[in-house]
Amino acid sequence: MDAQHNPRVVIVGGGFGGLLAARTLTGNPVQVTLIDRQNFHTFQPLLYQVATAGLSPGEIAAPIRWILRSRRNVEVLMSEVQDFDLARNVVKLTDGEVAYDYLIVASGASHAYFGHDEWEPFAPGLKTIEDALEIRRRVLLAFELAERQAASGKEQVQLNFVVIGGGPTGVELAGTLAEISRRALANEFRTIDPRKTRIVLLEGGPRILPAYPEDLSRSAEEQLRRLGVEVHTSALVTSVAPGAVQMGKTRWPAAVILWAAGVAASPLGKKLGAPVDRAGRVLVNPDLSLPGHPEVFVIGDLAALKDENGKWLPGVAPVAMQEGKATAHNIAAELRGEPRKNFHYFNKGNLATIGRAAAVAEFGKIHISGFVAWLAWLFIHIFFLIGFRNRIIVLVQWAWSYFTYERGARLITGDRHLPGWDELREEEAEGHTAAD
Amino acid sequence: MDAQHNPRVVIVGGGFGGLLAARTLTGNPVQVTLIDRQNFHTFQPLLYQVATAGLSPGEIAAPIRWILRSRRNVEVLMSEVQDFDLARNVVKLTDGEVAYDYLIVASGASHAYFGHDEWEPFAPGLKTIEDALEIRRRVLLAFELAERQAASGKEQVQLNFVVIGGGPTGVELAGTLAEISRRALANEFRTIDPRKTRIVLLEGGPRILPAYPEDLSRSAEEQLRRLGVEVHTSALVTSVAPGAVQMGKTRWPAAVILWAAGVAASPLGKKLGAPVDRAGRVLVNPDLSLPGHPEVFVIGDLAALKDENGKWLPGVAPVAMQEGKATAHNIAAELRGEPRKNFHYFNKGNLATIGRAAAVAEFGKIHISGFVAWLAWLFIHIFFLIGFRNRIIVLVQWAWSYFTYERGARLITGDRHLPGWDELREEEAEGHTAAD
Repeated sequence: MDAQHNPRVVIVGGGFGGLLAARTLTGNPVQVTLIDRQNFHTFQPLLYQVATAGLSPGEIAAPIRWILRSRRNVEVLMSEVQDFDLARNVVKLTDGEVAYDYLIVASGASHAYFGHDEWEPFAPGLKTIEDALEIRRRVLLAFELAERQAASGKEQVQLNFVVIGGGPTGVELAGTLAEISRRALANEFRTIDPRKTRIVLLEGGPRILPAYPEDLSRSAEEQLRRLGVEVHTSALVTSVAPGAVQMGKTRWPAAVILWAAGVAASPLGKKLGAPVDRAGRVLVNPDLSLPGHPEVFVIGDLAALKDENGKWLPGVAPVAMQEGKATAHNIAAELRGEPRKNFHYFNKGNLATIGRAAAVAEFGKIHISGFVAWLAWLFIHIFFLIGFRNRIIVLVQWAWSYFTYERGARLITGDRHLPGWDELREEEAEGHTAAD
Repeated sequence: MDAQHNPRVVIVGGGFGGLLAARTLTGNPVQVTLIDRQNFHTFQPLLYQVATAGLSPGEIAAPIRWILRSRRNVEVLMSEVQDFDLARNVVKLTDGEVAYDYLIVASGASHAYFGHDEWEPFAPGLKTIEDALEIRRRVLLAFELAERQAASGKEQVQLNFVVIGGGPTGVELAGTLAEISRRALANEFRTIDPRKTRIVLLEGGPRILPAYPEDLSRSAEEQLRRLGVEVHTSALVTSVAPGAVQMGKTRWPAAVILWAAGVAASPLGKKLGAPVDRAGRVLVNPDLSLPGHPEVFVIGDLAALKDENGKWLPGVAPVAMQEGKATAHNIAAELRGEPRKNFHYFNKGNLATIGRAAAVAEFGKIHISGFVAWLAWLFIHIFFLIGFRNRIIVLVQWAWSYFTYERGARLITGDRHLPGWDELREEEAEGHTAAD
């Protein structure tokens, strides 16, 4: 069979970058192997909806082999990449090896604690479906534990939810948590009043959404406040402990602490042997290839590349998708004997959602806030969601919660222990109060 | 406040029985406290759909406090009941106590291994959302591991899925697994052929669905065979080991083993101090009260009661619902000074689903099979599903998979180890073959 002799392109990672590369390579004279640890692609922009019980995991994820089912030259392997042997053109898996002619590494990023990994158990981040389920579990459990405590006649525990980091993820989480406590849960408890939950967003820098223009940052802060979020900027967290966040001498008791402050590239980046930046992202050539290895490409959140203006490209889905596509085109061109092209990011605009009918959007010089930005955000995200079925279901879920304020996926699964709760309860019993 | 002096009814368990009791007590001069370990009610008849990746957990479950949100005299506590002190009229929780005037115990049943609890890690049962996710994980993982093994050029592993127990749950699982392997996954793998998966249903008795009339058992068996299931009756499992099921001298190597053979009542039944049957069900009075304790009722799968014809009432949702309602009515009657009534089950009919367009139904003397029975099953189950939003979503999901054969929730979450896989692979390598 002729196809057997086509060059093999191995893609590591089934996120936006990897998927777009695989799709774009369809129909070219190559065999593609896409490797991912998970059997599914996660639509990361909607992860916060799973974390806040608005959507179920199955509604924002789709099996990678289903997405690529009709691409006959693509095979999908669920496996974990351990290392690379660039001299032998081989990817090393937990069990076995896969040889490549071209390699595209698109293994993404995870959250990082700036050298304080010991904070993770008390302040989970949001990068995977499992993370989202853990956050959902903690948030819902906090209300249940508070109700149980109060119903048994003991001192009521003031619920504070502290979100650390004022980037897009922190803003989404804080806004949606405010919505839940003020609306979805408001009438379902008999002893506690969920509306008294304090939602606190802590940002270390001078303004939230620092990657956006200043007027949109201000607007986002205003929209958050209207939803009931307390926003603190220039708020440097010095430590995270069970049930509390410390900022210098100020101490925030917190039933739930969420981490949205730092990102680190996948550890696979360092195994490629090329220089990396502080976040572990690989410093790639202008065509996204690995220095010294034209047959290896690094794309998406794992790649560090500057745009024409000397600004680092952000770790967002549109960059990863365009990089995946460009890399596939470069491989196809090279196989036809044509030269490669350097990567240029075409920025169509930036959108960040805040909560119900609240968002900010930047399309070049046009800045929009509020309901219209939120509608734009909503339709763009439903449009890009993978799978027609998912689009319908998410639209129904969304319309439903828009009109009823209900959240469809409020299940506490996993164990029933909330890290930090015992410490918090003891502290309350001793009469400490929340910082102001 | 007057309501404070109303008698307190404590309900243990938020399944069909407990929920119906709570709902029926609304508007009566009682305070109700419903206690459940979970924060959500699970619509058990659709659990097999979660186990087979057709639906997401959030689509067949709803928060108990959401279901009861408008019942102002009902409070919901998420907590675990440890014991009862019937002398002091108190329910003991992990943290604290709740006093009652009336107690309704509706803590249900779980799967049982007939004294072989050591089989559980290799043959999970299906009673909770967590069970369903574990089964889904194993089934999907088996295909992924087989593909990885085959893609690396090693000997292909014959996938056998063995379901032990030919009651309604075993039949649903076997039928749907056949559907998945023959349809949903058929074209998505490049090396293995999922259609070659053998789905085996083992029933210890002489026929499957033993609680149904004989003609429907025969029809169900025929419908299963048409879907591609191998049905073996009078098949007594003598042991379950990692990667294999033993029936006397016959050995079935199996990538996935599922347990649908035995049910045991919740261990709380024994703590009530009254006689229990072999399955741990409490032998209740004709009004569902506990012998010697007229203020305590036991309902649903935890109760053992005979109907007019001397037949034990089955552990199904309609029985639990009618018992919950009847008990609430008896309590209300007693508070009005009226006498209690004995419980009579009104059997509206029995339905068991087998797979796509396959089911059996018994409405008195009318026996139906196939598509019509399946449609009846489908609409009745969507109708009883709790929450209008869930009904819409499940209907969309169902219509979608009916026409496309796709399964919407094919995510492998949790760890990536399949119990028994290594044993199975070694055995294959030694040249053993599947039993016939």
